[in-house]
Amino acid sequence: MIPPRLIYKRGLLKILDQRVLPDKIKYARARTCRETAKHIKEMTLRGAPLIGCAAAYGYALSFSSQVPRTWRVLEKKLAKNALLLKKARPTAAALFYAVDRIHKKALDFIKPLKNAKPDSKNRSSLFSVIENEAHTIALEDKISTLKMAEFGASLLKKQTVVLTYCNAGALATMGIGTAIGAITMAAELGKIKQVYACETRPYLQGARLTMWELMKQSVPSILITDNMAGHIMKTCKVNAVIVGADSIASNGDTANKIGTYVAAVLAERHKIPFYVIAPSNTIDLELAGGNEIKIEERAPREVTMICGINIAPESANARHPAFDVTPASLITAIITEKGVIKPVNKTNILKNLNLSVL
Amino acid sequence: MIPPRLIYKRGLLKILDQRVLPDKIKYARARTCRETAKHIKEMTLRGAPLIGCAAAYGYALSFSSQVPRTWRVLEKKLAKNALLLKKARPTAAALFYAVDRIHKKALDFIKPLKNAKPDSKNRSSLFSVIENEAHTIALEDKISTLKMAEFGASLLKKQTVVLTYCNAGALATMGIGTAIGAITMAAELGKIKQVYACETRPYLQGARLTMWELMKQSVPSILITDNMAGHIMKTCKVNAVIVGADSIASNGDTANKIGTYVAAVLAERHKIPFYVIAPSNTIDLELAGGNEIKIEERAPREVTMICGINIAPESANARHPAFDVTPASLITAIITEKGVIKPVNKTNILKNLNLSVL
Repeated sequence: MIPPRLIYKRGLLKILDQRVLPDKIKYARARTCRETAKHIKEMTLRGAPLIGCAAAYGYALSFSSQVPRTWRVLEKKLAKNALLLKKARPTAAALFYAVDRIHKKALDFIKPLKNAKPDSKNRSSLFSVIENEAHTIALEDKISTLKMAEFGASLLKKQTVVLTYCNAGALATMGIGTAIGAITMAAELGKIKQVYACETRPYLQGARLTMWELMKQSVPSILITDNMAGHIMKTCKVNAVIVGADSIASNGDTANKIGTYVAAVLAERHKIPFYVIAPSNTIDLELAGGNEIKIEERAPREVTMICGINIAPESANARHPAFDVTPASLITAIITEKGVIKPVNKTNILKNLNLSVL
Repeated sequence: MIPPRLIYKRGLLKILDQRVLPDKIKYARARTCRETAKHIKEMTLRGAPLIGCAAAYGYALSFSSQVPRTWRVLEKKLAKNALLLKKARPTAAALFYAVDRIHKKALDFIKPLKNAKPDSKNRSSLFSVIENEAHTIALEDKISTLKMAEFGASLLKKQTVVLTYCNAGALATMGIGTAIGAITMAAELGKIKQVYACETRPYLQGARLTMWELMKQSVPSILITDNMAGHIMKTCKVNAVIVGADSIASNGDTANKIGTYVAAVLAERHKIPFYVIAPSNTIDLELAGGNEIKIEERAPREVTMICGINIAPESANARHPAFDVTPASLITAIITEKGVIKPVNKTNILKNLNLSVL
């Protein structure tokens, strides 16, 4: 089985270090909100849903044992920590969702207490409320992966040959994963003939993490470099491309790991359905379209070095956009824990979220 | 300047080892035809035109100082060596071209001598003919790169933003390169604003070789991972994609380094002209279309390991097709030393080769 990604005990968050997987099972530690944000930024953990859960626990780590002088002081501190967490990765919608949600829970708790003085008792109650909310966010994520997997697997036919990208697996969530969740559930139903996993440069999440997960679950899997996707789609009867998502705009445009857009363009050319599987908290209704999604630009040295070894001439320029945007028009369906959005458009997205058209 | 790729002296071919570039300038040695074939297979050198030239020199290394017992014995040996060389890389058309050409030269020389006994004098004459032919093939390659560069550069406008793939540079030829030759010539004419070089997994020819060549020639260059090509085309005003070729069928379908097809599909989506630059000996008229091009399948460990480090779980399955095929319909123009083939179809290809329609 895949080891737990996050282990929270009051005052400590243990984080499965995904940078050294699959070679080593090692846990990093965060004792503060700042340390949690640092781990998110430095990709000790990754995967939008998991980042959201880690941030919720990180928010709980804001609490010191000290009773705050005033509620105002505490509110200010919590707001600062919420911002710190949200800034750690600018593209993951689940991060903003989780932090906003837990922060609101805290503020809602504090509101009626404004006239009372903070003491160890109400501080402790607040702390429990916050911790419970973090646990709830994590539990909801776990449950939602099961629902997504069911919806996703139901779309696949017997003898499916899947291509997947990056890692949208257990390691990206608290549960069984999004894209990989659907694939493994379909495999249990005997529907999966073959999975091709793109290695996903520069961090190689596909090679290191997705292959590890698929092999652990005995799903027939073949690793390819990202640039092989076209040849494999053309020659290997791929009939489904399944990926996760980091942020989905209200029109369905989807940001996911850099290269996902390439897979979508190739899928369209080869008339292969392209499925995005992500929890509904990945959908940010405030974003009208993909051009409003902020694309994180990471350090060029993450491209020019692999495993600590320089692969380019010294002082070579490089770019490292960490995500790209796949327009809704290239997406056959988006699958959330609430169901299947197909065709992908604003009306159907709002319907999925049980909201009426604005 | 780029160091010489091949240095031939009677009995010895020194080969610039491209596997350790740009870190080290190191020459490997071949003293026999078999050793030359091994270096080609193991990618000590690469690049279709350069492979052709190396094979021609490798053929010359077949000659021992011994006078053969009969012409028949020598012919048999030469045929065996020709086959050995041609089998080293199954996709490079220039390899077959060069070996067939030099082998025919040898057979043509031997033919009128059939009644004479081999002696040190006619053996020595034959050796000179062979060596001269190898030098001629290499010189022709050098000259053809200059012509291709001129034709290629003439197609580019001011402020061109190019995306290139793999290494179709000086390191792939005896001259200034094919795709990179055109780019550097255009840069000298002040036409190049920016070049994006795809790293080209798994061998990283783009990161290691193309970036090195471009930086040495002060062409503004940015390295990207292959999966970034879509995002970069969409957001960075790329207005030309320029690549080399390993094999071109008579209808214009083109095999080139794995991932080239992906770049072509993306170029089409973004309405960016897609140029293939390759010497005319890359065109194999015996191939009706791309589906007849033999795609070399290399060792999976070349995918699962980078710089000697495992990037995938132990015993992970992987595929390593070394090339893919871009259909003629996605190619804006093919540029050979004889001119520009546009639109790309059999009639125009035959015209370029100064042949009438068959």
